[in-house]
Amino acid sequence: MKTDGRPRDAPDLDAAPDGTGALDEIFGALSDPTRRAIIARLTDGPCSVGELGAPFAMSAPAISKHLAVLERAGLIARWKTGRVHHCRLLADPLAHAGAWIEQHQAFWENQLDALEDYLDREEETCNQPPPKQQD
Amino acid sequence: MKTDGRPRDAPDLDAAPDGTGALDEIFGALSDPTRRAIIARLTDGPCSVGELGAPFAMSAPAISKHLAVLERAGLIARWKTGRVHHCRLLADPLAHAGAWIEQHQAFWENQLDALEDYLDREEETCNQPPPKQQD
Repeated sequence: MKTDGRPRDAPDLDAAPDGTGALDEIFGALSDPTRRAIIARLTDGPCSVGELGAPFAMSAPAISKHLAVLERAGLIARWKTGRVHHCRLLADPLAHAGAWIEQHQAFWENQLDALEDYLDREEETCNQPPPKQQD
Repeated sequence: MKTDGRPRDAPDLDAAPDGTGALDEIFGALSDPTRRAIIARLTDGPCSVGELGAPFAMSAPAISKHLAVLERAGLIARWKTGRVHHCRLLADPLAHAGAWIEQHQAFWENQLDALEDYLDREEETCNQPPPKQQD
């Protein structure tokens, strides 16, 4: 079986036992607008590195550096067919980062639930005087 | 109305027209394990800066720097009651980052749909010989 055209394996997300190192790399990679734009382009499907870099007012080595950051974070895979380098997006690291955010977004609901519990308890234990009527 | 104990306003997510600058700050803030641990702690509710920094083997100024990064990204609000500084988590920036990831995660489904369409078209246009019967 030929290996031409097959992407290289992406870094293992479990390299750090709790995925901490991976999240550092993933969120770090996402903190740059050029790298986010590259990801956005790759959501249309794989493409050559030349085609990928064309819309950016940036040198080929500068684009290559951004691709290296994305590759290190496991967000993309790069491979070579003949003399042409290609890229494609990998799903797992985005899912990993999304799961972390989703888990911590739940805090909002938790805090609202806690407030509701608190108010329920207050209602049970307090005998407040009725509010003054405004005439 | 007293303003003691009220958090300062968080930075406006729309400061950059497309939220690009905000996403740089948010993802950058999330790329550090200490800052993610601070966020995780704040999902239990607001607390004092002293209490927040206690579990970390880190100087108060180092913690303060991390809090400044989180505050600049709009992820937390800090305020002072008497001589005690407090922090709480803000929901919008996490939601903003989560929405970006979710939108780009959809690429996976898009690519599967595109593949399905392609296979459907192939099936319609090709007249393949029927598969050999195995007796």
